[in-house]
Amino acid sequence: MSTDRIVPGFRFGATTAGIKQSGKPDLALLLADEEVAAAAVFTRNRVQAAPVLLSRERIAAGRARGVLVNSGNANACTGPAGAQAAESMARAVADAARIDERRLLVASTGIIGVPLPVDKIVAARGALLEATRPDGFDDFSRAILTTDQGEKTAARSVTLGRRTVHLLGCCKGAGMIAPNMATTLGFVVTDAACKRRWLRGALREAAAASFNAISVDGDTSTNDSLFLFASGRADNRPLSSDKGQADEARAFSEALTDLLSELAAKIVGDGEGATHVCTIEVEGAASHRDAEAVARRIGASPLVKTALFGADPNWGRILAAVGNAGVDIDPDRVDIRIGDVLVARHGAAVEGAREAAHAVMKQDRYTISVHLHRGRGSGRHVTCDLGTSYVRLNADYST
Amino acid sequence: MSTDRIVPGFRFGATTAGIKQSGKPDLALLLADEEVAAAAVFTRNRVQAAPVLLSRERIAAGRARGVLVNSGNANACTGPAGAQAAESMARAVADAARIDERRLLVASTGIIGVPLPVDKIVAARGALLEATRPDGFDDFSRAILTTDQGEKTAARSVTLGRRTVHLLGCCKGAGMIAPNMATTLGFVVTDAACKRRWLRGALREAAAASFNAISVDGDTSTNDSLFLFASGRADNRPLSSDKGQADEARAFSEALTDLLSELAAKIVGDGEGATHVCTIEVEGAASHRDAEAVARRIGASPLVKTALFGADPNWGRILAAVGNAGVDIDPDRVDIRIGDVLVARHGAAVEGAREAAHAVMKQDRYTISVHLHRGRGSGRHVTCDLGTSYVRLNADYST
Repeated sequence: MSTDRIVPGFRFGATTAGIKQSGKPDLALLLADEEVAAAAVFTRNRVQAAPVLLSRERIAAGRARGVLVNSGNANACTGPAGAQAAESMARAVADAARIDERRLLVASTGIIGVPLPVDKIVAARGALLEATRPDGFDDFSRAILTTDQGEKTAARSVTLGRRTVHLLGCCKGAGMIAPNMATTLGFVVTDAACKRRWLRGALREAAAASFNAISVDGDTSTNDSLFLFASGRADNRPLSSDKGQADEARAFSEALTDLLSELAAKIVGDGEGATHVCTIEVEGAASHRDAEAVARRIGASPLVKTALFGADPNWGRILAAVGNAGVDIDPDRVDIRIGDVLVARHGAAVEGAREAAHAVMKQDRYTISVHLHRGRGSGRHVTCDLGTSYVRLNADYST
Repeated sequence: MSTDRIVPGFRFGATTAGIKQSGKPDLALLLADEEVAAAAVFTRNRVQAAPVLLSRERIAAGRARGVLVNSGNANACTGPAGAQAAESMARAVADAARIDERRLLVASTGIIGVPLPVDKIVAARGALLEATRPDGFDDFSRAILTTDQGEKTAARSVTLGRRTVHLLGCCKGAGMIAPNMATTLGFVVTDAACKRRWLRGALREAAAASFNAISVDGDTSTNDSLFLFASGRADNRPLSSDKGQADEARAFSEALTDLLSELAAKIVGDGEGATHVCTIEVEGAASHRDAEAVARRIGASPLVKTALFGADPNWGRILAAVGNAGVDIDPDRVDIRIGDVLVARHGAAVEGAREAAHAVMKQDRYTISVHLHRGRGSGRHVTCDLGTSYVRLNADYST
């Protein structure tokens, strides 16, 4: 266990409560030593899981003591009993830990529409607290997973004046055929001192540039949540929107955005059955909004995504997706590059480009660039290929 | 060859021009004995293939002599050369058939972005015309296919006054993970006599209630086209919007809608790798528009479609899709039925419903009904499951 995995002021734990049929760890706790500044962003789906509703309410004040997470059951679409279950799981663990239950947030991921077995969580609380320790981050990061192929973590440090502050984060994703359909959970802790209101704004901005370009978009799952806790133990001058602190605030925000981007890319790369991660860059749109709509449409197109799986430079599918974005475009002006290879100019094939483009698409990671030649708007979206194993994983998830 | 497959006034032919690498028939001709009333609806994608642009222009007058179809190459995203290719293919066959080229429509389906090998079509025109005969409909219906598993045809007859008129249609589809991404081509002939303007309106209405509820929607492929030709040989009083003809017009429109619905269902059922066809019925929405948006969103959700593949009664994914439709809903009021089995009431599970719902989902065809309890709007969408073979079919389509 490297010291990278320790952030002053926080403890982590995980155990197996028996919610997952697989017998893998499915209950995790992130606990601050005392009440800390905290912020979160949540799903925009009209259907919001009980843990989202509860955590949203509890974090409104901008402070929390920690978050209790279960995997294997989303506690979503579970009616009034679901709201009680979310409160009960928090109360059971808060009582055992002797903390104020109103300061314990909750997150759940897994199957939707099945009652949460709260009794299993209650029964496991002792083991969970016993396992909770400063170097428990790796256990935490594994216990939050569902169909993910492995844990996804990232760390950064940044110097603020004479202090070095640390950021440590993990997330879970998967279900990436349409990134916006996956449940994404993310957790970041830092020992930086931050004003609560500033922290919230910093998280929103960083999420927009990272998680929102893959999954926490207008279209999201019922449970998507991203949490940020700041213990202040680094003893830096608390970050705020004061002018005198603009440089420090920017440095921290950049590190946070960078960390979240790494986590977001790991979610895409660990998409169910994903073998390629592809960044879609759109330029020359009439507006940024148009560019983002086009990038998202390309990134979400099943026909494009299956072509990525086959490393098939079928750029016609890309152009067809552009035409379906609901954005005014002129197909005869569109240029498309796969990596550095210009495959379509003015909406038509560039001869002899196929083999070179195919070679690019065999790589694990590459970029597809689309130029609309209509204006200065640009946008991007990170997506992955759609392979046969996605279907197998999702076809019998609950049976 | 049954006489069902003959409609007075029309001939059909097909041959192998060598556009498809498989060596299967890939060139088809539908030819009326003389110029006839004709109508068509086309894709709404901003990127429209050359044959769509040409046919749209040529059919504006409401009459045509026939349509030349090639499969294996969509002649889409092919630049100015594509427009020339569409004209050239029509001219070559029209000249050989000694008809006015401006009355010959064209349709293409297959790979996008690759120049159409017009020379192969020119070379095959003799064989095509030789094969063209009144009982050639089945050959025609096979030569228009791409990744379809089999031909899709339907026939109806309807009595108008003392005359019986016939309708005969075929189509191709496939690529049904997102039905709106597939290229759909449809062709219907009838011996009914119809006023040209009336014919166009009748086709639009019938398409809205059938093809538009699966694929010729706001989101469409570059080549989607649906053609209707009316020879008038049944010698009925020409159908029109005259009040005195309301009953006859309604009878014909119902038969046309019915025929197109059968064809549309066959497209869904023959979706690439599809094993189940599922009709999504939405009721109780604030408006029909809302209901249709919700039905479409459920029908397009990859997570729902993989659950259909696994016969997994994971209704939480259905409710999550409802929440992503961009429509104002109250999740705690939503009821969901799979077949006759109520699986969710007021947004929460109905206990003991799983096994019965699973049994329904093992059927080839069934209905999922969603009641929003907000108003009187209703809508439907026909979709299919997403299986592993879809991915295999689409991953190496062009390589």
